Amino acid sequence: MLLGILFIASIAMIKQKKTRVLFFGDSITQAGVGPQGYITKLSDMLKDKNLDAQYELLGAGIGGNKVYDLYLRMDSDVLAKNPDVVVIWVGVNDVWHKASYGTGTDPDKFQRFYEAIIKKLQAKNIKVFICTPAAIGEKTDFSNELDGDLNKYAGIIRNIAKNNNCPLIDLRKMTLDYNLKNNTDNKDRGILTTDGVHLNDAGNNAVADIMYNALFK
Amino acid sequence: MLLGILFIASIAMIKQKKTRVLFFGDSITQAGVGPQGYITKLSDMLKDKNLDAQYELLGAGIGGNKVYDLYLRMDSDVLAKNPDVVVIWVGVNDVWHKASYGTGTDPDKFQRFYEAIIKKLQAKNIKVFICTPAAIGEKTDFSNELDGDLNKYAGIIRNIAKNNNCPLIDLRKMTLDYNLKNNTDNKDRGILTTDGVHLNDAGNNAVADIMYNALFK
Amino acid sequence: MLLGILFIASIAMIKQKKTRVLFFGDSITQAGVGPQGYITKLSDMLKDKNLDAQYELLGAGIGGNKVYDLYLRMDSDVLAKNPDVVVIWVGVNDVWHKASYGTGTDPDKFQRFYEAIIKKLQAKNIKVFICTPAAIGEKTDFSNELDGDLNKYAGIIRNIAKNNNCPLIDLRKMTLDYNLKNNTDNKDRGILTTDGVHLNDAGNNAVADIMYNALFK
Amino acid sequence: MLLGILFIASIAMIKQKKTRVLFFGDSITQAGVGPQGYITKLSDMLKDKNLDAQYELLGAGIGGNKVYDLYLRMDSDVLAKNPDVVVIWVGVNDVWHKASYGTGTDPDKFQRFYEAIIKKLQAKNIKVFICTPAAIGEKTDFSNELDGDLNKYAGIIRNIAKNNNCPLIDLRKMTLDYNLKNNTDNKDRGILTTDGVHLNDAGNNAVADIMYNALFK
Repeated sequence: MLLGILFIASIAMIKQKKTRVLFFGDSITQAGVGPQGYITKLSDMLKDKNLDAQYELLGAGIGGNKVYDLYLRMDSDVLAKNPDVVVIWVGVNDVWHKASYGTGTDPDKFQRFYEAIIKKLQAKNIKVFICTPAAIGEKTDFSNELDGDLNKYAGIIRNIAKNNNCPLIDLRKMTLDYNLKNNTDNKDRGILTTDGVHLNDAGNNAVADIMYNALFK
Repeated sequence: MLLGILFIASIAMIKQKKTRVLFFGDSITQAGVGPQGYITKLSDMLKDKNLDAQYELLGAGIGGNKVYDLYLRMDSDVLAKNPDVVVIWVGVNDVWHKASYGTGTDPDKFQRFYEAIIKKLQAKNIKVFICTPAAIGEKTDFSNELDGDLNKYAGIIRNIAKNNNCPLIDLRKMTLDYNLKNNTDNKDRGILTTDGVHLNDAGNNAVADIMYNALFK
Repeated sequence: MLLGILFIASIAMIKQKKTRVLFFGDSITQAGVGPQGYITKLSDMLKDKNLDAQYELLGAGIGGNKVYDLYLRMDSDVLAKNPDVVVIWVGVNDVWHKASYGTGTDPDKFQRFYEAIIKKLQAKNIKVFICTPAAIGEKTDFSNELDGDLNKYAGIIRNIAKNNNCPLIDLRKMTLDYNLKNNTDNKDRGILTTDGVHLNDAGNNAVADIMYNALFK
Repeated sequence: MLLGILFIASIAMIKQKKTRVLFFGDSITQAGVGPQGYITKLSDMLKDKNLDAQYELLGAGIGGNKVYDLYLRMDSDVLAKNPDVVVIWVGVNDVWHKASYGTGTDPDKFQRFYEAIIKKLQAKNIKVFICTPAAIGEKTDFSNELDGDLNKYAGIIRNIAKNNNCPLIDLRKMTLDYNLKNNTDNKDRGILTTDGVHLNDAGNNAVADIMYNALFK
């Protein structure tokens, strides 16, 4: 994350204005700006460190969004806001909606849209951080129905990070590790999420911690 | 279609150059530029009427495309070609891939992407014609598995045509009417298609006829 | 229906006991024994005609049942009750659960289980009436998402009726005809159903009427 | 496996006739009686140990079978053959067909049909061995799309084994362990299977080995 840190720090110094960090995603990010949300927690952490004068955090999450929905609304919801940094967190619905609605996203198209978003952002000299999807179900005995597919998409995102020079925030790995330690009862929810997908308070804390380290340290 | 006719005619006169008509779609349109394809047939019809000096026809179909795939590639594959007229024909995969891969398109998002494409084209003063999807199965006893959903998406497209001032080429209605007359044996393919979806020779003729009337008469 | 009538009448005379009619199905039949249910209405109609001494009506519906669920529980829930007549009404979940849970029934296996049930019942000299599934959505513009598949399974049941000497109660046809007349606003529910599938009061009346004619006239 | 061994041995002694072992399953078991199939290999192993006079092995696998298909044909294909031992191996299609055809099996119904089969067999004093499904995809990085659901159904079968006094042959565990050792390249097929599901020669050997130990040692 060192490069990311230096990069953001340098933006902050040169511009003499607040570095604008935009969080771009689905319902999880939409909830991130709520009172207990991970973006709100990040803001509080910056205040605690007296860094709040240097950073402005913006949420741009919409429930149900898949990668192509992000692509469709990136002009109005991202570029129009002139962010210095964009954190993309998407993928749960691309997998989940396959079974629930028959409207998930094919893996090759997932990659294509994801990289098209990154290219457009990088062309504007926006620093792009990308995240793996955290969880659809928290069971630790490898029986979450969609884990195989979710791991596949997480793998695609890890490759995208490498090939497009984007720092990776591996929420999938963080969630799996956290659950292996803390979910010895093999619960399907309630550890980091309320419902297997959306963050509870512990989840918002865990995500805020890993993001703080990636973005601001 | 009168407005469309006048419009295309007027483009032809003012510009003193060939009116460029681009066909934008999926595998059906990809096959449309083949030796027996509907776009090739349209070219032949224009030659027969000595209108080939006035029009240039271009195919831009890619197999497996859904509406959001068209949106993703419209800069490189459509706008870069400077067409005067674009004929959009998409929708079969948006419905079909729900059951076959779990990766179809939600109806609300189908409409959103479709209208985003139209708006971008119209902003460049490109005349946009839109088509309903023809068929997924040709049975006439109302037992094609996906007919209900296909009719729903055809209905969405008819509304889009009305609300966005786009002439409609109703291939769905044409196909249903043709089959009711000519498919009394309730076959699931072989009337206008080879496989229920892709056009056979009769299908390419029927599509070329209805498109000729909509575009060039 | 004449044969069915004579048959039931003859049972009643010979046995000098109540003819036992059992309704075997899913949640629609489970609700059929409720205060406003179609089985309750049938009982009331028999009372009105002073035929209640001749017939005993039994419900054996369980929510979510598909054809193979009926097969699994037919010993305990049907044969153990010694019915003279069984009315089978199943099929909605076999189609519906394909999209909603990925657990519908293949058409060839639908037929195989259906005929296995009939054979077991007929081997005990039980008279078997079979019904087509009524509706999944009541729209009249042919855009109910599952209509094509539902019509296909209705067609399979009509063939089963012919090939196995079972009187057919064509609830699918009845529902379509009723909606074409009474649902000119193209509503997706509220005509014969509360939710597109389960019967409202008008639906219970309509089903009771067509069943009364098939079973008791 | 000790009880199972003693049981089979005792049958062999008392009856003074061959102990009949029937393998009941899907396409994997159907291929098991082929020249390189696991049942053929088991026969060869019995010959090598001079035990072939004591055992008769029968295959009863049909491609595409799910648990309820086994239930439907158990009278004709199993009970009619008077086996002393039945080895049930089913589950791949119950999971796989969810995504591919929308016709998989709900977990609660999977268990219900499975236990109904066992009860019928045990009521005839037939010894029942049951197997977990081996694999749908052989990748070792936890990204086989259906692994989560397959593990869930394997877990259901392990519980059924416990609760119904059936020796368990845990092919799922065997396959995972084998792949972790031998599939360091994370291939999706070609280790124990030809296509991720059906056994190759190594797969037939591995299955024959584990079954021999469970059934005949």
